[in-house]
Order: sequence, then C-alpha cells, then structure tokens
Amino acid sequence: MSTIAAISTPPGKGGIAVVRISGPEAHAIAAKHVSLPSCGPQHQAVGYSLFRHEGHVVDEVMVTRYNAPHSYTGEDTIEIACHGSSYVQQAILQALIKSGAIMAAPGEFTQRAFLNGRIDLSQAEAVADLIDSTNAATHQLALSQMRGGYSHRLQQLRQQFVELTALLELELDFSEEDVEFADRKQLLSIVDTIDTECQRLCKSFHLGNAIKNGIPVAIVGLPNAGKSTMLNALLGEERAIVSDIPGTTRDTIEDTLNIHGITYRFIDTAGIRNSDDQIESLGIQRSYQTIEKAQVVLYLSENPDTLSHEINELSSHISLEGKLLIPILTKCDQIQPEGESNSSTASTPEGMLRISALTGQGINQLHQKLAVHYDVNSTQDPIITNLRHFEALEKVIASLSLVRQGLADSIPADLVVIDLREALYHLGTITGEVTSNEVLGNIFHRFCIGK
Amino acid sequence: MSTIAAISTPPGKGGIAVVRISGPEAHAIAAKHVSLPSCGPQHQAVGYSLFRHEGHVVDEVMVTRYNAPHSYTGEDTIEIACHGSSYVQQAILQALIKSGAIMAAPGEFTQRAFLNGRIDLSQAEAVADLIDSTNAATHQLALSQMRGGYSHRLQQLRQQFVELTALLELELDFSEEDVEFADRKQLLSIVDTIDTECQRLCKSFHLGNAIKNGIPVAIVGLPNAGKSTMLNALLGEERAIVSDIPGTTRDTIEDTLNIHGITYRFIDTAGIRNSDDQIESLGIQRSYQTIEKAQVVLYLSENPDTLSHEINELSSHISLEGKLLIPILTKCDQIQPEGESNSSTASTPEGMLRISALTGQGINQLHQKLAVHYDVNSTQDPIITNLRHFEALEKVIASLSLVRQGLADSIPADLVVIDLREALYHLGTITGEVTSNEVLGNIFHRFCIGK
Repeated sequence: MSTIAAISTPPGKGGIAVVRISGPEAHAIAAKHVSLPSCGPQHQAVGYSLFRHEGHVVDEVMVTRYNAPHSYTGEDTIEIACHGSSYVQQAILQALIKSGAIMAAPGEFTQRAFLNGRIDLSQAEAVADLIDSTNAATHQLALSQMRGGYSHRLQQLRQQFVELTALLELELDFSEEDVEFADRKQLLSIVDTIDTECQRLCKSFHLGNAIKNGIPVAIVGLPNAGKSTMLNALLGEERAIVSDIPGTTRDTIEDTLNIHGITYRFIDTAGIRNSDDQIESLGIQRSYQTIEKAQVVLYLSENPDTLSHEINELSSHISLEGKLLIPILTKCDQIQPEGESNSSTASTPEGMLRISALTGQGINQLHQKLAVHYDVNSTQDPIITNLRHFEALEKVIASLSLVRQGLADSIPADLVVIDLREALYHLGTITGEVTSNEVLGNIFHRFCIGK
Repeated sequence: MSTIAAISTPPGKGGIAVVRISGPEAHAIAAKHVSLPSCGPQHQAVGYSLFRHEGHVVDEVMVTRYNAPHSYTGEDTIEIACHGSSYVQQAILQALIKSGAIMAAPGEFTQRAFLNGRIDLSQAEAVADLIDSTNAATHQLALSQMRGGYSHRLQQLRQQFVELTALLELELDFSEEDVEFADRKQLLSIVDTIDTECQRLCKSFHLGNAIKNGIPVAIVGLPNAGKSTMLNALLGEERAIVSDIPGTTRDTIEDTLNIHGITYRFIDTAGIRNSDDQIESLGIQRSYQTIEKAQVVLYLSENPDTLSHEINELSSHISLEGKLLIPILTKCDQIQPEGESNSSTASTPEGMLRISALTGQGINQLHQKLAVHYDVNSTQDPIITNLRHFEALEKVIASLSLVRQGLADSIPADLVVIDLREALYHLGTITGEVTSNEVLGNIFHRFCIGK
C-alpha cells in the first residue's frame, strides 16, 4: 500500500490549511520534515514544529499524529496545519511528495477507510453527501447515513437473508432425502417482511432525492391568477416579469429557496388555458410537464367560487396523486375580509390558504405548511438519497418477487436459492460487502481531493 | 477579554475545515458541544468527539485543545476540525456563537497573539504577508520576518537608543552642575551607526517592495527592435500584437512571470523615436515614465554596431542609475554566427545577451541573469517589504539628523533628548512597543478572518 498526501482544506487562501499524509510510510516521510509529537499512551498527539525542506524552513506548523488503526483511514496518518497561503500549502505538499508520498486521488482517504473496514460503502458515500450538503435537511440525511443508522438497517435485513439462504442450502445437501429444513410458510413471511422494508426504503428515495436536489414546487393556475407575482413574493425579488396582461409568462421560470432548512425549487408556469397563440400553447404544454415532475403543486386562483372547480379541471388532465396540493386564493388584499368570501366557504377546498403577494399575508402559513409536510426530523426511519442504493433495492425487490413466486409454485430449493443469492448480492452492493473496482471508481470519483 | 470564534480554513467546500475559538471562555463554551481531550502533562491534546447542538449531532469532529499560554493567541484555544461542507462549518460556528463566543474580526487571533506578547507587531504583519505570499521570494521574506530575524535587529537598535537617551537624561538631572555623562564624540558615533543601519534597511525597501509587488522590467528599444516579440517569447504566448510595421505597439503592455521564485512584471513599451504621429508620441512619453519606474531595463536592438550608442542616447534622456540594465541583441537567428558580428565586439556593451525570440536562444541566460541579481537567499541582511516600516525608518533618520545637528551645535541636552525620544518613538512603532488603536486597526484590517 502506498502512502498518499493531499491538501485537505478547501482550495485557496485562508488563515490555516491542513495537509494530510496517510499510509505505512506516513510517519517516516513526515519525520523528514517535522518533529513528530510523541503519543505516549494515547493514539493521537499534537505538537508544534518547524517544517523544513532542503535546508530551508518552509513554515511553522502544528503536527497532529495518528497511530494506526486509530485514524480516519485506519492507517498511520499525519496532519500538518500550516499557514493558509497557496504557496505554503503547495510547498509542503510538494516536499512530502519529493520524500516519497504520492498525490492522493479524489476521495482516496475515505476509500482507504472503507477498504480498511473503518466504514462501510454507504457510509463512505454519505461522507461525500455530507460535504456537499448545503442545508439542514441534506446535512441531516447525510450525517445519519454516515453515522451508520442506515447501514445497520440494511445489515439486519441482510442477516435475515443469510439465515434464510443457509436453511435452504442445507436442504440441498440432503436433497436425496427430501426433507424441508425451512418451513415454507415461515420463509414466505420473512420474504414478505424484507420486501416490505425494501419497498419502504425505495419509496423514501423519492423524498430523499427531492430533498437532495431541491423539492420541485409548481406554481399553477389560470392566466393572470397572480403566479409570477407569487413567485416574486416568495423569493423577495423581481424574478419573473409581471404584468396585468394574461399570458405574460411563457418560459418556465425557476428559482430555489431555503425554507426551514429544506431547499425548494419553485417553478413558475405559464397560465393554463386553451390558446390560439402557438407560443403560449407550447408554454402550457410545458406547464403540464412541470406539474408532472413536481412534488408540490401550489394551485392559485383569485376566485374562491371557482377554485375547487379549477383544480378538478386540472386533475382531469393530469394526475395529482402523491403530490402535496395546496390551493391558494390570491390577491387577498383586494377582497373584502367580510361578506362575499364568507358565503363561498362551502365550496372552499380543504387546506386553502389566503395569500396576498402585495402585503405578504399568508406567505408564512405557506412556509409552515411545507415545513410540517417535509419535517425530516420527525421521521426516525432511514431515508434513501442515493440513486445507486435505490437501484440496488429495486433489484432486491425483483429478486424477492421471483423467490415468492418460486415458493408459491413449490419449485426446487436450488432454484429458489439462486434468486435469494441474487437478492443477497444486490443488498451487499449497498454496504460494500460486494463491490467492484468500477463501482468504487464511480463512487470516489465525485469526492473532493483531500478527503 | 471576550472569547472569539471563526472559520480559520479557506472559504468554501473541502475535505475538512477548522473552526477556532479562543479566549478565557473557549474551553467552557466548546465543552457545551464537544468532549474536550485531556492534556495530561502536555499543553496540547487532540481527540475525537461528536459536535452536538440543541440535542442534535452536527458532525463527527477532531478537537485540538490548547491550554493558555501555549497557543497561537496565548489564550485558551480550541480548534474543531469538521467535515468541510459549507453548511457544517457555519452550523458549528453559529452554535459556538449561540453559546457565548463572538465572531472574530479579521486578524483578531493574531492581534491577540500580539497583545499577549507572543509576537511583536512586525511579526504579526509578517503573518499576513506570509498568507498572501504567492512565490518563493515573498514567502521567504515574510517567513524570516515572522520568525523575528527582522525584529531582533530593530530591538538591538532600539536598545542602543535607550542607553543613549538614558545617559543624556541623567545630565538633565544634574543640569545645574554642568556635567556631561555622555561623551559627545561617542554619542555621535553611535548615532552614525544607527543611522547607517536605518539607511540600509530603508534602501532594502526598494528591493523588498519590488519583490512583494513584482519587479518591474521595462522592455525598451527603437521601433521594430523586436520588443513585442520578446515579450511574447518570455511569456510563451501571444500577448502583444506583433507586426513588421515599426510602431505597432502604442499602449504599454504588461504581464507577470515567475522566474526562480520571484515575480517580474514585464512591461512592453512603445519604440523610442521622434515621431509626428501624435498618438505614437504619447506612447513614447509613456515609455519614458515606464523606464523611470522600472528596476530592470532590457534594452533591445537588432544592430550590434549601434547598441552602445542607442543606450547612451537613452541615458541622455532619462537616468538609468540604480537600475539593472541588460543590453540585448535581438533577432540573433537572422545573424550569421561568425563574421560580421565578431568584428563589432569592440563596441559590444558589457553583459550583452544575444537572444532569438524565434528559437528561444538566450532566454535562459536572461532568466539566469535576473535570478543572480535578485537572489534573496544569498543575502543574510533583513529586507524590508512593509511601507509602514519604511516610513517609520525615514522618520527615525530625520530625527537622527536633528540629533546629529544638535550635537554638532552643542545645543542643550534637553533639546537633543527630544529628538532622540522622537527617533525612539518611531522605531517603537515598527515592533509595536509604541502603538495606537488606529494603527492596529489598519494593520489587522487586511488580514483574513480566522487568522
């Protein structure tokens, strides 16, 4: 195993920077340039030193020493905290490389942590997600995955599989005697349990993925319902062109907003109506596509009497199932608080919000409604955010379906075992019990250098 | 004294980031979020911990603990190395601030190091220079200043002043008795020594400042001498427009190049000749200004027989004193290596280089010539790079001149003491024995946050 080195702090100039070196020769190579602190009975130690190279002092540094396996990588590691000039960082890295270290590839420290059994593969992937996290929700999902909450669940599932498969394989050894060690009924019940759990995890991916990439929110309504005004009010800036002329918005305008730690992608759509204007028609087609992809639909209308009807009309064109639909009565600053609006409460859709983009009335309620719906803190169940995991789980589910079919048809145990092994394999790819260089390459490629 | 916190690593995303907290409450505040490693008999310790805030885990971190006064600031300090996501860095900083720390101002950690007597003011300034350093030369000047080589010299000078002043002040106490404790001749000799040293330091500023900002090199010569071709050859790119038509370059074209660790600012100038073209004449005026500011003048000619004469002509217009003049014979690929050129050796200026921009011949010799002249490693004398120090030294020299004048005129000791005190004051401002909030503000304002 080679000894690798890289600058681990963000690129550029700062107060301090950290150069990390890890591998069997890490201590020996570092000792050519700095005096290593003595660990004593501890596994780690820190001390002041000069960094020397070719007879010159390069910098005054703090040296942190980790003795294997008590480091991030599980190997001997040295971290050198130097002054954060670009020149000093490079000079120190180059000196270590001249002394025998090689440049670390992206994510190579984390890859070694995985290869040395410090973390499993899904935890390693969570490290990259954690570093990429830009808001509270993605941060929390990545952190809980990195800390293994997610892996433990998968390992439990896998353990059940292993036991199941072992029982069936035992039957194969005694195949001439025609015994059944595995109670088929019990087997089916365990397969069902695992299947349900995999289904649940798969389902969580839609939320997890949306949280990771920003939850798409479509702003929908008839022309001139106040959609662009609403977008501007939400974003607090003049993002969309607003006019009294219905059909002003033709392009799909999009911007993101962080509400209570979650990123939403608000998408203003063209007003939905039959139009002879060819360009406007194209815009309306695009609106439907936007609604299809959205997780949340804000349906805007300025008329409380027709709002329910409009929503019904929309859902006859496009399915709103599984989406969070929020009916919104707009331009509420123009409506008398009493009177007419009261008479129409019967036809008011459930959960309707009254919003005035002009005064800001109702905007907070909208934030609240989204926050309650997407409360990542409230759920204790793991949420999947990783496409690779999602695809593996789908393959597990497909294999389980074959197992269930096989059991129902009473096909020979050796054929059922093949499908069980298949499910076991795909489950193993998630945590990295089963892996390939290609998969590892794809995973660690997206890391930054130095982690 | 308050407890301050800041992100000390460069801004942005990276493998790891470091949040630093320093002050009397640093340990107590950090302990609300992480478990502090125990130092035992050491002054520093490092350990793994979770970072918790309001019941949630924010990250897994490494905590480095420094017990006062064994830290950069001289105060109790904690450094928290976290995952380098922007979100995590901010979350940790905000948590510390909620627990009682205040945001550190730019350079406030270094300012505290100065106020706590860990370093003097010129060393503190060198920290900022070190972080700003982008090449070997600026790095080495800053590092040697930071490590105190420069301060020690100033402190020696100041010590001599203090003794001198003390002797003269002793005379004041006995003024009625008309005694002279201080031998005037010896006094004058000490003043001369100090003056010489200050002059030397002042003189070094021209080099130091040039190294810090890039050494200006003017490329000069008659029209069509090959100046723009030369600039392009030096930079290895098509920076200046080149044509056979004399006078193509009108603007002053400038670009920097790092040669053997020193940054040079090469400035292509318009060809020097009498011209009726008004725009070209303006360009030639600007060429003279460029030459005046340059430290190095590359004088280019394609004619070995007239090169010396051309240089004499130039120096009749503008003084080349104190500048490194390098005569360069250009287009050497067009000249027969033997014959004609040999006949003109008598008139060849000393140190002339033969350069072909086309083949690259002679470019290395030019690099070598510059490197030998500006060899920062060869000088053991401190080099001043700081304008503030330069101005203070100039004031010291002015005061010393008054002292010398006073001694020559045998004016009363109490008047001489005033000028000596003045010199002492200005010398003290450099290392920070004398300082003001305004001066400190100006100095630390240019630091990055977190240092």
